[in-house]
Amino acid sequence: MKAKAVLYHAGCSVCVSAEQQFAAALDPAKFDVEVVNFADAPDRIAEAEKAGVVSVPAFVINGAPFHINFGASMADLKGVA
Amino acid sequence: MKAKAVLYHAGCSVCVSAEQQFAAALDPAKFDVEVVNFADAPDRIAEAEKAGVVSVPAFVINGAPFHINFGASMADLKGVA
Repeated sequence: MKAKAVLYHAGCSVCVSAEQQFAAALDPAKFDVEVVNFADAPDRIAEAEKAGVVSVPAFVINGAPFHINFGASMADLKGVA
Repeated sequence: MKAKAVLYHAGCSVCVSAEQQFAAALDPAKFDVEVVNFADAPDRIAEAEKAGVVSVPAFVINGAPFHINFGASMADLKGVA
C-alpha cells in the first residue's frame, strides 16, 4: 500500500523550489504525493497545523512533519491566506 | 542519468528520522542517494558548507541544499565532530 505524502506550501519561491525538487523526487511506487497550496486551499491550514507543521514548505509523511528550508511561518500565513 | 542526492546528518534523533523517512523515500530510478554522517566523516563538513548547508539533517540535491527540520547547526557540529 502506498503511503500518503502531502507537501504543504504557500506559493513562495522557497516553496516552489521544494515542490519541484522534492515532490518529484519521491518514489511514486511508495508514495501518493499531494501538493497543497494554502493560497488555493486556506481551509487546509488547520489540518497541517494538527500534523505539526509550523512553517512551509513542509511535507507530512506517514503523519510526521518534515519542514524543508523556510518559506513562511504558519502564523504569518494565517494573516494572509 | 541519475541525479546525486546526499543526506548529511550527525546521528541525532531528528537526523535519524529524516534519514529513515526521506532517504528511503526518494525515487531510486531518479537518484543515487548517499548518506553522510559527520560523526563518521567530519572531513566532509567543508563540502556540505560549500553547498550551502547550515544545519543538519539536510539534503543536497542537484547542488541545492534542503534543510529538513532542525537537528543541529553546522557551527555546533564543528565544535564536536
